[in-house]
Amino acid sequence: MNERMKRLYSLLETEALDAVFVTLPKLIYYFTGFYTEPHERFMALVCPRGEEPLLVVPLLDYEKAAQSASVDRIAALDDTDDPFAVLQRHLKGGMKRIGIQEDHLSVKRYVGLMEATGAEQAVHIERELAQIRVVKSDEEVASIQRAIRCIEDVLHQTLPLVKPGVTELELVAEMEYRMKKLGADGPSFDTMVLSGAKTGLPHGVPGKEPVREGELLLFDAGVFVDGYASDLTRTFAVGDVGDKCRDIYDAVLQANEKMIQAVRPGASFASLDLAARSCIEGRGYGEYFITRAGHGFGLEIHEYPSIHAHNADLLREGMVFTAEPGIYIPGVGGVRIEDNVLVTKEGALVLTSFPKELTVIGV
Amino acid sequence: MNERMKRLYSLLETEALDAVFVTLPKLIYYFTGFYTEPHERFMALVCPRGEEPLLVVPLLDYEKAAQSASVDRIAALDDTDDPFAVLQRHLKGGMKRIGIQEDHLSVKRYVGLMEATGAEQAVHIERELAQIRVVKSDEEVASIQRAIRCIEDVLHQTLPLVKPGVTELELVAEMEYRMKKLGADGPSFDTMVLSGAKTGLPHGVPGKEPVREGELLLFDAGVFVDGYASDLTRTFAVGDVGDKCRDIYDAVLQANEKMIQAVRPGASFASLDLAARSCIEGRGYGEYFITRAGHGFGLEIHEYPSIHAHNADLLREGMVFTAEPGIYIPGVGGVRIEDNVLVTKEGALVLTSFPKELTVIGV
Repeated sequence: MNERMKRLYSLLETEALDAVFVTLPKLIYYFTGFYTEPHERFMALVCPRGEEPLLVVPLLDYEKAAQSASVDRIAALDDTDDPFAVLQRHLKGGMKRIGIQEDHLSVKRYVGLMEATGAEQAVHIERELAQIRVVKSDEEVASIQRAIRCIEDVLHQTLPLVKPGVTELELVAEMEYRMKKLGADGPSFDTMVLSGAKTGLPHGVPGKEPVREGELLLFDAGVFVDGYASDLTRTFAVGDVGDKCRDIYDAVLQANEKMIQAVRPGASFASLDLAARSCIEGRGYGEYFITRAGHGFGLEIHEYPSIHAHNADLLREGMVFTAEPGIYIPGVGGVRIEDNVLVTKEGALVLTSFPKELTVIGV
Repeated sequence: MNERMKRLYSLLETEALDAVFVTLPKLIYYFTGFYTEPHERFMALVCPRGEEPLLVVPLLDYEKAAQSASVDRIAALDDTDDPFAVLQRHLKGGMKRIGIQEDHLSVKRYVGLMEATGAEQAVHIERELAQIRVVKSDEEVASIQRAIRCIEDVLHQTLPLVKPGVTELELVAEMEYRMKKLGADGPSFDTMVLSGAKTGLPHGVPGKEPVREGELLLFDAGVFVDGYASDLTRTFAVGDVGDKCRDIYDAVLQANEKMIQAVRPGASFASLDLAARSCIEGRGYGEYFITRAGHGFGLEIHEYPSIHAHNADLLREGMVFTAEPGIYIPGVGGVRIEDNVLVTKEGALVLTSFPKELTVIGV
């Protein structure tokens, strides 16, 4: 049994469980080395007390699982099977407490698991699972670094294509094409290219809007490489964007740097958010910093921790997260500068290296 | 209140509910016209008995929601808010029965909703919600047709690029680039290009494998256009693939046609699966048809119905689904031919028009 799986089994003791059910596909990959996206089909890694792990996969993924999973017991479900009846056949009964992923498991499957196991209590173990994987190994950091190099190369290759008239969606197409050409598994989230006033929407959707001179242009993009994500945002000036936009940019850049300076093992996530937020507040834009300051990532693009003012958890060496303060002024525009940061003994090691000074492009 | 919202509110009567909670982003779009992907953030459309609908969105999506949602009451959650405390402030208490999306709602949020509403019972309403949207309007069918035209154009443009040596991932990159260039919102699922023995994996992942002469090459791809999906699979012969592969192809094509011929209002989904399955069994490949025969789609790439041997539900005019029998022989290869079908009074209207005869490409 590998180290990760041993840590998973250790939850049976620390949480006094009869079985753990891991249901998030990326987490099943983390523990077994087997990955698939089962869409609406049922999939689970089951660790029953005193028994070898059981991997339950859709039949159409059985071959892949048999090839790649570090688990000997694999049960396949065809599309007419009731997953919970199959589980019941494979598990000893008499369970009392089972551990579940409460953020991921649906109510319907929860009901099914409780019936199949006969358990009386479902213990929420997302927090414990997050603690297992929040500290990244050197190998994981290396994968993240490859994903960062890839998206930075993509962005470098894309900037020369920016000129007034090219649309947001055309730039998205150019970027995603280059991601795959450069060897990425694919984008780690929907690539975001936003121009002008749309930069004021933290979750704007790229459209047919053309790049215009005198406006801001924001790129938020990442890739998966070897299963691991990167997540980079840079905002540019297409020609002269005026004093207001330059001031916003400067405030965000300062907040980004303050946040990174605050990184050290033992600091709270709240203190990082505060470092960025007080900086932006000091510049008079507090009401426009409407997001958290960052989030963990790795196998998923959003993982524990969520970096916001109420998260008193403490930083540990080996954690990887984004630092992405921003200012979003509705109808006007916005700036976000997002780096990827590794916590080391000495403080932040900034894994992203794309220049951060306000750069004029496209003219 | 629009027609769709009225049908949603009618569930309060038919299911004797005090409120309905819609939590799937695409379904919130269906009812309100507002779409965002909130990732791990909480979002819900709440329809309380005797009150106007309430839309709860992440703060960073508030502007977009205010612009596009056909709902007057919108509550924004910042990243430090407890969504359920906010819900409690906005809702009248004293609820007994609430309707939830049991396939989508997580256990954690279920617990939160029950506490926030004080409800004693959560009624599973996925099936009722599916019935509301399973019959597509003419406008929805038109959007699906645009998505189909787009992916068919992409495939037509991609075939000339196939030659021995080009890799699966390179072809994926070419296809996804063309999707965006042709105006798609993006792929409707991970574009699949599989060569050789990997065609035997229904859920294979494209990699650095090169296209080789004498092998099968499978494309399974779709796009979103105006929010609606398409989902097309074609399998090609790179040069001469030999008698065995030709026989498999012919069996799958026959099954595809038999399934389509079985489409008529009032037939059961099981009968469609049976039509395809008995055809493939008759050709001696029954053990290799390891998937269901198709699935509904629309705003999502996989929607109700799931077309398999145990689904006795009946076809109705206006339903749209895939017909995608396949044969998958581990270590050898496989063939899938997937069309998109609309149920009309007269039977199947096949919306996809890409040729289905075995076509030799790349040499």
